[in-house]
Amino acid sequence: MITVDDILREKRHSRIITVRMNETVATAALIMKRENISSVVVKDVCRTEGNTVVGVFSERDVTRALVDFGANAVAMPVASFIKRTLTSCALSDSIGTVLRLMNEHEVRHLPVLAEHGLVGVISATDLIRHYLHEEEADVPSGHAAAGAGVVLSALR
Amino acid sequence: MITVDDILREKRHSRIITVRMNETVATAALIMKRENISSVVVKDVCRTEGNTVVGVFSERDVTRALVDFGANAVAMPVASFIKRTLTSCALSDSIGTVLRLMNEHEVRHLPVLAEHGLVGVISATDLIRHYLHEEEADVPSGHAAAGAGVVLSALR
Repeated sequence: MITVDDILREKRHSRIITVRMNETVATAALIMKRENISSVVVKDVCRTEGNTVVGVFSERDVTRALVDFGANAVAMPVASFIKRTLTSCALSDSIGTVLRLMNEHEVRHLPVLAEHGLVGVISATDLIRHYLHEEEADVPSGHAAAGAGVVLSALR
Repeated sequence: MITVDDILREKRHSRIITVRMNETVATAALIMKRENISSVVVKDVCRTEGNTVVGVFSERDVTRALVDFGANAVAMPVASFIKRTLTSCALSDSIGTVLRLMNEHEVRHLPVLAEHGLVGVISATDLIRHYLHEEEADVPSGHAAAGAGVVLSALR
């Protein structure tokens, strides 16, 4: 069974990009563009509490903030827009569990939490990349381009 | 082999949501929020040309427009932000091809073009839903919740 841990190992060179709750929509948007990512993990501002993950702020949240508050949205804190309930996953969760969580909660990014806190973020894009890499590894050199559907069609 | 056509049949009750090139970022954002979708297909404004698809405008484009143009972005036409090259797929394309296109072009939505024009849109979320539905259909009632990883782990 492929787990969240396996997927995170594949993206081991990627940093976890976070913002603090009191940072603005404009700052979060800038960070997402600069890092070429579609969400950032939102952390608590209270330093004594350490690195508590309180939510995820995404391009979707930027869009909805703009609809609800117009141009004023850019100066508002991300804390105003994150969901009240944090949906996360664990290192031992299967990809099936991750897909179900993404579907049920209508999110494409899940913070990965371990005992000592945030250890990564897993996205729908990471899962797509995983399948494509798996497939390339399985197909002899030179045939990789032709065989993209092979592993995926094994689902049927 | 599962094709784009199969996926579109599963979402047959969903309409294709479009905007015209000259509509604003604010309008596109409003439509995406109202319809609970993360992109809209952008069509030509020239009526004599009919329904020519010229691009896709997404929540990502809203975010980047905001970074580049600040509050002025909301009144700008979506045409200012769509890519110069349209990436689309055909009804007969395999899911493998779709995943590869999404990965290479860093998009999560592909317009589906047939001879007579736009017939649908396929998203990464549609693919996730497809796998989850497949799996539910394969697992005896009552076991559906436990077995989410079964079909997906068959990839290994």
